[in-house]
This record gives sequence, C-alpha cells and structure tokens, in this order.
Amino acid sequence: MIFTTETAFTGEQDGIYSAVIHEGWDVVGNANGGYLLALAARAMADSAGRPHPVALNAHYLSPGRPGPVSIEPEVIKAGRRFTTARATMRNDSKELVTLLGSFGDVGALEGPMRIDAEPPELPAPEDCIRIEHNASGFPPAMMSKIELRLHPEDAGFAVGKPTGQPLFRGWFRLLDDEPIDAFALLLAVDAFPPTVFNANLPVSWAPTLELTTHIRGIPESGWLRCRFSTRFISGGMMEEDGDIWDASGRLVAQSRQLALAPKA
Amino acid sequence: MIFTTETAFTGEQDGIYSAVIHEGWDVVGNANGGYLLALAARAMADSAGRPHPVALNAHYLSPGRPGPVSIEPEVIKAGRRFTTARATMRNDSKELVTLLGSFGDVGALEGPMRIDAEPPELPAPEDCIRIEHNASGFPPAMMSKIELRLHPEDAGFAVGKPTGQPLFRGWFRLLDDEPIDAFALLLAVDAFPPTVFNANLPVSWAPTLELTTHIRGIPESGWLRCRFSTRFISGGMMEEDGDIWDASGRLVAQSRQLALAPKA
Repeated sequence: MIFTTETAFTGEQDGIYSAVIHEGWDVVGNANGGYLLALAARAMADSAGRPHPVALNAHYLSPGRPGPVSIEPEVIKAGRRFTTARATMRNDSKELVTLLGSFGDVGALEGPMRIDAEPPELPAPEDCIRIEHNASGFPPAMMSKIELRLHPEDAGFAVGKPTGQPLFRGWFRLLDDEPIDAFALLLAVDAFPPTVFNANLPVSWAPTLELTTHIRGIPESGWLRCRFSTRFISGGMMEEDGDIWDASGRLVAQSRQLALAPKA
Repeated sequence: MIFTTETAFTGEQDGIYSAVIHEGWDVVGNANGGYLLALAARAMADSAGRPHPVALNAHYLSPGRPGPVSIEPEVIKAGRRFTTARATMRNDSKELVTLLGSFGDVGALEGPMRIDAEPPELPAPEDCIRIEHNASGFPPAMMSKIELRLHPEDAGFAVGKPTGQPLFRGWFRLLDDEPIDAFALLLAVDAFPPTVFNANLPVSWAPTLELTTHIRGIPESGWLRCRFSTRFISGGMMEEDGDIWDASGRLVAQSRQLALAPKA
C-alpha cells in the first residue's frame, strides 16, 4: 500500500494539514504532478468532509522536492451534494501548487447512460512495454512506484523512434496491485510520458501550467486502460487530454492539462 | 460595445471589485455561466496585472440574478510569465461562482506548431439557423445579446427533432460585430445550447458544476467557428468539450465542463 502510505497527510492543526513529499516520486528531481495532486486532494477531501474529488483543478507554481509540505484547504461552499474547496500546497519557502475542487460521493449520482467512445484497444499487459526507471533519469524514478505498460506501437520514442503522433496508450496499476481509489486516479492522469515525446518535436520538458481532472467513477480492481493525446500544439502551448477506463470497460476519469510546448 | 460595457467592473476598493450582473444575460432568470466568467475574469486579470486569462477554472455555486456583485481576487503567485490568482464572486447573500486562473499574455509565447484537427465545416452564417430569444424563455434572453447561428443539421432540437448526437456546431459573434477579446471567448464557451438537448434524453436543465477554459489565441475579427460535443453521459454526469476557431482558421479556445446529467 505504498501509494496510500506515501500520499497520506501526517497531521492537521487549525485546518492546516502536514504532509511529506516522499522520495522516489520524481521526474529528474521534481515530484510528479499527479502525485502532488493526490497528496493535496486527500487533505482537501478530509477538510470538505466528502469522500472523493469530483472535479479538481491544479495550477503548478514551483517544482516540489522531497520533504515536508503544508496544505491549507478553505471550504468555499458546502452544498447538498458537493463541497467546493480551494487549497495551496507550500513547502517552507514557496507555493508548489494551488488547487480548486468540488468534492462529493462519485457513486451516489444517478442518471442516463450514453457513451460515444470506446476504450483504447491494447495488447494484454504482458505484451505491452513496461516503462522502468533508468538511473540516467529517463524513464524517471516514479516509474519504480507504479506499473506502466505502453502499447508497443507507441513505445518507440524510448529508443529514439517517436511515432510522429502525440499519443500514448497503455496500462496503469499501482505496485502489488494496490486498489485504485479516486486519489490514485489523480496519479494516473499525469503518469504517462508527455505526448510531445511522440510528436517529432525536440524532446524536452513540457511543464504543466494547469491540470483538471474529472473523476467519473471509482474503478473496479485491475489494470486501468489509458489514452493520452494532443491535438493542438500552438502558440507555445499544448493541451493533453486523458481518458481512463477501468478493467470492466467503464470510463473512470478524464483529464486535460495545458502545458508549455517545447521550444522549436 | 454592449459586451464590454456590461462585463466591466464598476469599481475597486481594498482589492475588492464591484460589478453588476446586467439584465438580459440570463437563461430563464439565471445569468449565463460564460457571462459570469467574463465578469469575474476582468477583475482577476486587473488584479493580476496581466492582459489575458490563459487557463481559467470556475465552479458554479448558486444561480446569479441581475444586480450588484463583488469579486475578491487573491494573487497566489506572480511568476515571470504567468500570475495565478483565485477569486469568489458573491452577491449580498451568497457565493455565486469561485474561480482559479493563470493569467498572462497569450500572444507572447512561441513554440512549434502542429495541429491534428480541423475546424468544423459549417454553411455560411447566412445559411445557418439564428437562435433568437423567445418570450417563453427558450431560447433564452441572452440570445438577444449575442449572435448565435447553428449548423442546420444540428438545429432540429428547437422544433422537437433532436439529432440524437450530443453535438452543436455553429457560428458566434457579439452584437454589432464588437471585437472578440479573450473575455468574450469566455462567454462563447458557454453560449451554445447544452449538447444534451440533441441527445434524445429528457430535455431539462444540465447545471454546470465546473468549467475550464484555455485561451489559446486572440481571435482575428469576424465570426467564431464553434464545436461542442459530449462523449460520456454516465454516473449522473456529463462532460461537454468545446473547440473554438477564429475567422482565420486558428484555434483560439478550448473548454471542458462537467455538468449534472438530466435525470432519466
């Protein structure tokens, strides 16, 4: 249960939560954005008194290094079905990420069903390419904390053969098949390589400015089936859209982030 | 310049901005969500000292009625290229909408260009169907404040013949061809009928929980070419994705909202 343990807050006093950015969740030294989301959202959900993030926005302000952080949630409105709260995560010198979210009980809503999309077709996990941490820094350290398996057709970038399509499809699960809760979905939406790595553009850092996640269901146990794609690289920016499906074939999360495009 | 006039803030004291929800921007009595966005974002951009919203999140808390409101922006971080701020808009009794955004100069960034999408094909504006306010309340009053023209193939819902596809394509402009700035894009992303009106589901209110807009460019003058679609109506919720293109064929905004699906 390494994910649950390493995203738990460690205390709360006067509404300010303490937590720790643990070692090993980084991409060349900086904590993964999804990991920071999970850390912050646990404190926000606790403060809101609701079990799940439903719609969560994050703006990334400074890189997060391992060590203690504080999260100060503020409830804006507690409604009948949702509680809306904001929070900023700080270390002792600066703001790392600021968030706004509505929290509720994802399974409690009902309504009609209509799905105009299919989960991505993927070879079985054992026939996909596991992305494993390399001491050089790529793939990054956080790959040792999760299991990520890419569609073989999308994996060539790792050996210098990007597909030319800004698309990644693959499987995600936690180590030891730890159950995936709503907070682990926040990790999953930012766990894949940036789509730009497959776009025949200079492979460099594409820092996330903003990331929004909608939690649409709580996953059944098993692998998540994931698809991340980009349609518009323009004006120095790019969006990256994610759809995440559970093992039963149900959509469980959608994400969109706005990142700075690598310089031409 | 009715849009600029009716979304301007009227004063600022001690960091709290005054503004007015003007008459006529409503959908059966409640101010349109995009109109509220524009109103709030002008105050936030002023407070941030940046010309444009780049990524703006809003959570809708209570319906907005015509009358005075206050907006209290708080800058979280002023960085080199972006300033991140949050704000809540209130009337004298409650919170209407709470926002988080990063503000900057949209035209100032540079980078590579790669577009994997086409603007929607639309008949000329004069061959599309203008949506005009009807005293019954549908189409809503705000249609008198803008010019919205739907693709004829998507317009049958208005006469009881939904297409069955949760999709709207059409043209948008301000009255008297008032130039469309970044704030008017915030209006445009929520100006079309809810996609669910075309989905062969009970036509009823689909209240927006959360709406995120990315401003990707400042439009050339002329009509905006818009496309709004939904892929997942499930678990009592639905997303609605918008792409907005300017007259020169350039993507200028993307939006995604999470709304509550009508009850089955």
